[in-house]
Amino acid sequence: MSLSEFDTISQYFNSARLGFRRSGVSLGIGDDGAVIDPPQGAPISMSMDLLVEGVHFPVKAESRHIASRALAVNLSDLSAMTARPLCFTLGLSLPNLDNDWLEGFSEGLSSMAKRFDCPLVGGDLTRSPAGTPIVIAIQVHGYHLDNAPVLRSTAQTGDGVFVTGSLGDGAIGLCSLGLESHLGSSIALDLAALSEEHRSYLSRAYYAPEPRIDFALAAASLMTACIDISDGLAGDLGHILTSSGVGATVNSTLIPYSLAALAHVSLEGRLQAALYGGDDYELCFTAPAHVAEQLYRIAASENLGLQRIGEITLGSELRLLNGSGIEILSQNQAYQHFAPRASEQ
Amino acid sequence: MSLSEFDTISQYFNSARLGFRRSGVSLGIGDDGAVIDPPQGAPISMSMDLLVEGVHFPVKAESRHIASRALAVNLSDLSAMTARPLCFTLGLSLPNLDNDWLEGFSEGLSSMAKRFDCPLVGGDLTRSPAGTPIVIAIQVHGYHLDNAPVLRSTAQTGDGVFVTGSLGDGAIGLCSLGLESHLGSSIALDLAALSEEHRSYLSRAYYAPEPRIDFALAAASLMTACIDISDGLAGDLGHILTSSGVGATVNSTLIPYSLAALAHVSLEGRLQAALYGGDDYELCFTAPAHVAEQLYRIAASENLGLQRIGEITLGSELRLLNGSGIEILSQNQAYQHFAPRASEQ
Repeated sequence: MSLSEFDTISQYFNSARLGFRRSGVSLGIGDDGAVIDPPQGAPISMSMDLLVEGVHFPVKAESRHIASRALAVNLSDLSAMTARPLCFTLGLSLPNLDNDWLEGFSEGLSSMAKRFDCPLVGGDLTRSPAGTPIVIAIQVHGYHLDNAPVLRSTAQTGDGVFVTGSLGDGAIGLCSLGLESHLGSSIALDLAALSEEHRSYLSRAYYAPEPRIDFALAAASLMTACIDISDGLAGDLGHILTSSGVGATVNSTLIPYSLAALAHVSLEGRLQAALYGGDDYELCFTAPAHVAEQLYRIAASENLGLQRIGEITLGSELRLLNGSGIEILSQNQAYQHFAPRASEQ
Repeated sequence: MSLSEFDTISQYFNSARLGFRRSGVSLGIGDDGAVIDPPQGAPISMSMDLLVEGVHFPVKAESRHIASRALAVNLSDLSAMTARPLCFTLGLSLPNLDNDWLEGFSEGLSSMAKRFDCPLVGGDLTRSPAGTPIVIAIQVHGYHLDNAPVLRSTAQTGDGVFVTGSLGDGAIGLCSLGLESHLGSSIALDLAALSEEHRSYLSRAYYAPEPRIDFALAAASLMTACIDISDGLAGDLGHILTSSGVGATVNSTLIPYSLAALAHVSLEGRLQAALYGGDDYELCFTAPAHVAEQLYRIAASENLGLQRIGEITLGSELRLLNGSGIEILSQNQAYQHFAPRASEQ
């Protein structure tokens, strides 16, 4: 059955589960544009991500997983700006319209949209030629009430470097699905040895990363700089350093790992996954030493792990130390989408 | 030569020609999100379009044409909302990074962005698998100062139906490029007979449609409903009728055509192109009779054609009349992206 674009939008996207009303959104789907009307004087942060089938999510992944992950990684960008979610737009290019796929996609979006009170307000749906990958463009919009946006460029020498949650689970999660991350075999996860609980945890880590919105809003006024970890700690902390014109030392033994990662991945594999794996969508931020206790209290109140892993320094380098304070040399393999891949040399 | 994503963005997209500063934009490319700070209390309209190579623009079209058209059709949506352009975001999925292609694309975007003082503030660049089509997602953002957004849903019985410029040139322009529109052979353009002047005019009509921003801002307070013509007059005026719960009569002899269309396309072909061709990006709007003279003066001051082609009526139908007031029956072929195509029956 072939639905028209209009029918599809009204059936799957402009329903109460996605096009719901909220304050600050005055016009949703159905006109030439959406209209937002945020609180007077509130700056608006917005972030767009493009996700391509086979690149950013596995071919044949379940559509509800693709959808919830697509919106989650965008909300993660809002958390890194310390913005309150307001609404999102969706561009969807599909080689065909399958009702089951659309139903799952709409459901996956809805679960995330409702949790963060972030309705769908507009976008575009188009059919791409047969055999071409699904492409998803999502733009999220958030606003700032009593805190200014926290940028990458404002880290100060002497600040602590903090990360939320545990690192490496995104890349390890990808491996747990039987798929290979761009790190190749360095994670070396033994699939057969995975308990059901750890398998389920790791799969969720990849498909349903948790945007750290609540923590970001509560901690915004204490942070000096913030980013979310999408490309790996090395690359993303590197962005803070470059933008802020500073360096950092990170104590590798302080990097937090999940029980699943500790149980099934070697120390070296975990470190690779944390530094270069990406897809963690935890926050990496800087804050002065005297607010550390406040930060730990906020994290504890949200049942969220928080770890100080290093310090901002003079200079421009990211230095990784082992437990004895000795520098570990690491080639920077942070994922760059257009860097030549091994198979293309 | 393979550039990294970061190098590409800084070389082609975050340059002065695209990432320029303007009021209302407090943070552009380079953080987890962009931040806008429009005038206090100004509602913000936004619109996203997804363009797929081979569907929305010809394979192997020049990248500067693809770019200027992609931004123009989005700005056209802002004009239909009567919003002032503020900034745009860009998601770009490319199977490979070619410097010449990127240079042209950046140049094409820049010409349109500068004309409308609408800088690029963020987005995403990603590499899709080899052989897959280029996909472009653009979202434009505009604000409303002294006029509320003009919607589709507020046309009133007795209003006149107006269109700017000339209709049908988008579809005829596509034919002039030697490409077939979805109307098949009904336009019947004789390519060999085209003068260089008309060929150039029609090519521009397709590749460089003119967003009617200035007219829309000047006329906003006089309009009752507005849409831009992307799918053809029948379909787009139809959206106004459905949203507003009204009908309309249109006198087909009043539909305005360009000199090129008049010279090279039959009356029947022109009518098909205007009604069902799409890609015109002119405004179709409604306004009460007593403001018609004001509207004509505004259009004249901008050297823009404006034509009253019909009237809003009770009921829900779009009735098309010939010069003698006799109804012409026309099957509605307004383009729907997912309607089954002839070749797929």
